[in-house]
Amino acid sequence: MERDIFLIGGGQTKFGEWWGRSLRDLIEEAVEAAFKDAPCTALDIDLVVIANMLGEIGSHQAQLGSLASSLLPHRPPAVRVESACASGALALHTACAFLESGRAKTVLCIGAEKMTDASPDAIAEGLMGAADAEVDRPSGITFPGLFGLIAARYMHEYGLTRDDLSLVSAVHHSNACHNPFAQFHSTITPEAVSRSPLVSDPLRLLDCSPVTDGAAACILSTQMPSDLRLRASQVATDTLSLTQRATLTSFSATKDAMGKALTEAEISRSEIGVLETHDCFSIAAIINMEDLGFAEPGRGVEIYRALHRGKHAPFPVNLSGGLKGCGHPVAATGIKQLLDVGKALRKNDGAIGLAHNFGGAAATAAIHILERTHA
Amino acid sequence: MERDIFLIGGGQTKFGEWWGRSLRDLIEEAVEAAFKDAPCTALDIDLVVIANMLGEIGSHQAQLGSLASSLLPHRPPAVRVESACASGALALHTACAFLESGRAKTVLCIGAEKMTDASPDAIAEGLMGAADAEVDRPSGITFPGLFGLIAARYMHEYGLTRDDLSLVSAVHHSNACHNPFAQFHSTITPEAVSRSPLVSDPLRLLDCSPVTDGAAACILSTQMPSDLRLRASQVATDTLSLTQRATLTSFSATKDAMGKALTEAEISRSEIGVLETHDCFSIAAIINMEDLGFAEPGRGVEIYRALHRGKHAPFPVNLSGGLKGCGHPVAATGIKQLLDVGKALRKNDGAIGLAHNFGGAAATAAIHILERTHA
Repeated sequence: MERDIFLIGGGQTKFGEWWGRSLRDLIEEAVEAAFKDAPCTALDIDLVVIANMLGEIGSHQAQLGSLASSLLPHRPPAVRVESACASGALALHTACAFLESGRAKTVLCIGAEKMTDASPDAIAEGLMGAADAEVDRPSGITFPGLFGLIAARYMHEYGLTRDDLSLVSAVHHSNACHNPFAQFHSTITPEAVSRSPLVSDPLRLLDCSPVTDGAAACILSTQMPSDLRLRASQVATDTLSLTQRATLTSFSATKDAMGKALTEAEISRSEIGVLETHDCFSIAAIINMEDLGFAEPGRGVEIYRALHRGKHAPFPVNLSGGLKGCGHPVAATGIKQLLDVGKALRKNDGAIGLAHNFGGAAATAAIHILERTHA
Repeated sequence: MERDIFLIGGGQTKFGEWWGRSLRDLIEEAVEAAFKDAPCTALDIDLVVIANMLGEIGSHQAQLGSLASSLLPHRPPAVRVESACASGALALHTACAFLESGRAKTVLCIGAEKMTDASPDAIAEGLMGAADAEVDRPSGITFPGLFGLIAARYMHEYGLTRDDLSLVSAVHHSNACHNPFAQFHSTITPEAVSRSPLVSDPLRLLDCSPVTDGAAACILSTQMPSDLRLRASQVATDTLSLTQRATLTSFSATKDAMGKALTEAEISRSEIGVLETHDCFSIAAIINMEDLGFAEPGRGVEIYRALHRGKHAPFPVNLSGGLKGCGHPVAATGIKQLLDVGKALRKNDGAIGLAHNFGGAAATAAIHILERTHA
């Protein structure tokens, strides 16, 4: 990083179904929580970067930069960024560039999504915007459909079983029970996952992250130090359409972003002690373990086997509950992940944690590495 | 600016109604034209910033960063930004931050909009996303409605006449005749504007920029010099809703951005020799003259009176034809404006030009100042 960037505070709404609250309400609550947590006032903010994917479809609202900026008394410059489910991490990445450029010294990053105000059909169609509207959409396929294809191919290539796959959501739900901000506070057994209604063969309902309302906000600063310092912020892209890729069972954008992030942070993979990764569907979490370099191809599930036995091997994964347990208010997820990495580092007295957020079928992937420094 | 940023090339589609072409087609053509113009290859690009407002509504397409990045052989990192009609300028501003941070050395900025593939109702509703969905939208008002209120109030406060107002579109159409990329190549008389169908009293059809398809792309670089150097990139915000402002007849975000831009560029207003300004509706152009500081409140029309008499007083305004003459493919406009300022500086052997782009009713305003250096 060109300058030291510190995570000086953050906050979020509880993720869930907020029938009585608007997108603005959620943003407002997350921003208020962030200021309560940070050693600064609203007037210290000189830029707002807000991430959102479905504002137009779910809330008839665009230009969210201006909306969010207007929550602060001095209305600083603001911009909205979007990169489907990776929007939150792209907001962090954009904030880093502004901080490193010197244009901003303290940035408020927000991720927010209101998914329950539009019909499920409209939201499913909106989410399909993360795939290729010319190549994929005409087939009628949805995102659970795309990840169903990925899961089927992965099982074919590596012999992963349905019961193996069910371990992922079981682990994430178990973790979510300890997170007051998570949508779900119920443990589920692998057997319950395997028996849940079929959504897109082989994926079942409990393999899929839910439709969720929520917002998260964090404050990044080059001026105010904290014990949490960013060590890397990297982004990589892939084709929107799965049909244009060499493989369905690995996401090159994750690999690319991870390689660049390790280089930027000047650390080795083995130093990472905390991981929040993008489990939009259970199969994604397994593939991520491999693409992030923590397991050989085909062996990502072994990490979940260990986690399910109660081992933090090689380290805790999605202690927050991940997208399955916390819920996945699209653009809020990337910001929330960074907050959760920070919380886990503090709780476990850890040194280095990583947040991995992706958009669509990893057409965009982003990695943020956070270091906890001991004063 | 923290580093010297040069505009090394750019290109655009003709703006118009492109019934047979998709959002991707338009992006592709603009990008190709930019590379034809610039002394670099696609492989020199290390970041893509793409501006778009209506992709989800008009084309069922989000995550345009990945789509645009995939047009380049090495798929660099990419992000989509949105700030309603100011999206294009926000892409430039974001690109500047990445360039100044050193994260990128050469950035491809794209603005693109496909407005004719959705119904006029859907597009009108999509555009209303630039206002406040909770405060303004429930009344049923549209953007022509909002600017009708602004025009009516302005006429009330300053005595502007209907015939005065009609000068604006007449000037812009006349200029557009010389721009091969403009949607309209027909002169219109002020009388024709005054007689055109009423849209939102007092605004008539020919006061309103049209629904347009189009894309523009430019390449900004800190590595490759050119005769066009950015001197300022500034953004300011205001409330989304007109109901929360002190006045309807002046846009504070324009004033704020202009003040900051002059400071950043270290120039005085009188040095500006070329201006592209945001005439989404004719009344906006008149208000802009005042907010940018080129006319006293209530006297912006005097500039258009002079322009209509064929005088470039104080300097040429919207030589390209502006939003009315060129068409206004929302997010493409901000990029196109910068290209047009560059063209005008070269054509007229000018030194300093300014592009002024705003979103909604100037809830976001952005100013870019471009200098032509004589080698």
